[in-house]
Amino acid sequence: MEARKCITELDPYVPGRSKEEIAQEFGVKKEDILKLGSNENPWGPSKKAAEAVKEAVLDINRYPETNLKYLEKAFAEYSGVNPNQIIIGGDGADEIIDVLAKTFINPGDEFIVPLPSYMYYEFLFKPYGAIPHYAVWNVEENSLDLDSVLEAINKKTRMIFLCSPNNPTGGIVTEEQFRAVLEKIKDQNTLLVIDEAYFEYSEVTNVELLKEYENIFIIRTMSKVMGLAGARVGYGISSPKVIEYMHRVKPVFSLTKLSYIAAITTMEDKEFIAESIKNGIESREFLYNEINKMKSVHIYPSKSNYLLIDIHNSGFTAAELTKEFMKRGVIVRDCTSFKGLDEYYIRISICTLEEDAKFIKIMKEILNE
Amino acid sequence: MEARKCITELDPYVPGRSKEEIAQEFGVKKEDILKLGSNENPWGPSKKAAEAVKEAVLDINRYPETNLKYLEKAFAEYSGVNPNQIIIGGDGADEIIDVLAKTFINPGDEFIVPLPSYMYYEFLFKPYGAIPHYAVWNVEENSLDLDSVLEAINKKTRMIFLCSPNNPTGGIVTEEQFRAVLEKIKDQNTLLVIDEAYFEYSEVTNVELLKEYENIFIIRTMSKVMGLAGARVGYGISSPKVIEYMHRVKPVFSLTKLSYIAAITTMEDKEFIAESIKNGIESREFLYNEINKMKSVHIYPSKSNYLLIDIHNSGFTAAELTKEFMKRGVIVRDCTSFKGLDEYYIRISICTLEEDAKFIKIMKEILNE
Repeated sequence: MEARKCITELDPYVPGRSKEEIAQEFGVKKEDILKLGSNENPWGPSKKAAEAVKEAVLDINRYPETNLKYLEKAFAEYSGVNPNQIIIGGDGADEIIDVLAKTFINPGDEFIVPLPSYMYYEFLFKPYGAIPHYAVWNVEENSLDLDSVLEAINKKTRMIFLCSPNNPTGGIVTEEQFRAVLEKIKDQNTLLVIDEAYFEYSEVTNVELLKEYENIFIIRTMSKVMGLAGARVGYGISSPKVIEYMHRVKPVFSLTKLSYIAAITTMEDKEFIAESIKNGIESREFLYNEINKMKSVHIYPSKSNYLLIDIHNSGFTAAELTKEFMKRGVIVRDCTSFKGLDEYYIRISICTLEEDAKFIKIMKEILNE
Repeated sequence: MEARKCITELDPYVPGRSKEEIAQEFGVKKEDILKLGSNENPWGPSKKAAEAVKEAVLDINRYPETNLKYLEKAFAEYSGVNPNQIIIGGDGADEIIDVLAKTFINPGDEFIVPLPSYMYYEFLFKPYGAIPHYAVWNVEENSLDLDSVLEAINKKTRMIFLCSPNNPTGGIVTEEQFRAVLEKIKDQNTLLVIDEAYFEYSEVTNVELLKEYENIFIIRTMSKVMGLAGARVGYGISSPKVIEYMHRVKPVFSLTKLSYIAAITTMEDKEFIAESIKNGIESREFLYNEINKMKSVHIYPSKSNYLLIDIHNSGFTAAELTKEFMKRGVIVRDCTSFKGLDEYYIRISICTLEEDAKFIKIMKEILNE
């Protein structure tokens, strides 16, 4: 049995590494590992959500709800839109991106993504026969090279992915830049996909643009601020027409029974959400300030819960430096697999302030700072 | 923004209805509802699995494992194959079917499915541009019309779906029938997909055929005997080459953290699995014998955890009869949305013996039996 040609040519996606893997490979205790590799919420999930999950666990022999109207309503209220503008994904935002492709991509259609950015768009879109057209994220200025996007747009462009704050660099795309793209595509069958997975940390959303433009799709996730990476809940916001089309192909049962309960309880826990944002920003600024004092590396200002570090002058490649960290029980992200970055960048995620301090100590030790 | 043509033409999938929906619509208490609509395990999940999930709940802020080797090993041992012959789905077997399409289907390829059978194959395959070619399930004899499958095979046939026991009829496909199909496709790029979602209730598996033929794919799920419909765990068994191709496009994180733990603990709970099978078969035989005594309906013998009932002579359509049941707090499956059946069939799932007795009483009351 032979696979399709586009599948045999696909680059594998390289995810962040887990505590279990590192514990086994480097002989460190799992509970001592500092995890700065996957942009999670280090303070854990909402305690109320955890309790609600425990109470529901004997019910997991039953299929999940297919009618997600209460959760749609919660996301709509949080986002300031109507429930018919919401679609929920049961494999986090990744499922939403897959459903975007399934709904709108014909083989040969093009999508634009600036590099470096989140690599999973490409991983999900290529199997649908979509062709990537790369634009440029200016890493030095940590801003979008708008012209590179505008120049890449043609009649075959079906989607444009702009991640804001951008993963892995942490810079944001400005409203003016979004407007320029929207003006250019307003008369064609093209969707501007704004990935707001990390928007809470930047305190900027672009939802308001939906009032003026129909062909915007905003991606959100519960894997970051909301503390539910392990539950795989994402959502999308768009015009009712786009959402209605996507509902036709969305998997019917993909949100598990317990993830549904965790999600709805977390959205009600406003205090948890506010604390997570406040603590996340505080941790990010602490890490930035500490690493900014180091001479052998360059850290970029970030509006997200991670920070990109240029290690060209450290004497290490990212693979080497990552390994030094792992030997000491610390997981950071080697950015070599991000197209558009060379092998001299790592990305670190926020931790609790106590963990941040431990991390800085270890980093200084490795770099002789 | 316009969707693809094949999406705008898609029939929506009609899932079984939930307790919440019926409770609201018919004003019955949720805890009093008898659910015979979705072929679940009525005895609940493994208690050991439920405990393990509770213990892990504070960890759901972390991404799930991407390396599922322990669970692959558990499924491989249970199935008598090697771990490199296993792929795991995080939206139950439905994700496995989607990944089959994504890996092997080019637009214009054909797939064969006998009618009536599980409608979700078509729901998942059509968005990839696959064209259904319908064969025949002989409902009266509750057996596959083998000739209709053999005649439907041509050079464009990429997959053949045979569900055994067949949903919603409950009959099985014989080894001789599978062999006849495999012989016919052995020199072409075609996969025989055997859906064994319910195989434990039939006490027959076709895994042994994999030793002789490479182009077989067996679908399994934890939603039935294993009592984890709400956790969305499925797996597939095939040749290492087919599995390796599929791993290239499989979603990286789709199995949630808690579903992983529920799955691995359930697979270790051999006693729970054995009891679920024994109790399930006992319940099925009780329901068959009781309904077989009724004069106004005809029930088909089943090798699964559900039974198909022909209600042509009952004076009700399936929609009417289903509504009568719902008024009394009972969910059964109206089979009208299954292509290949008219509007005079319902399907019922096994319950506990106590619930079965309640159900029979209500059914007699409605039918004046």
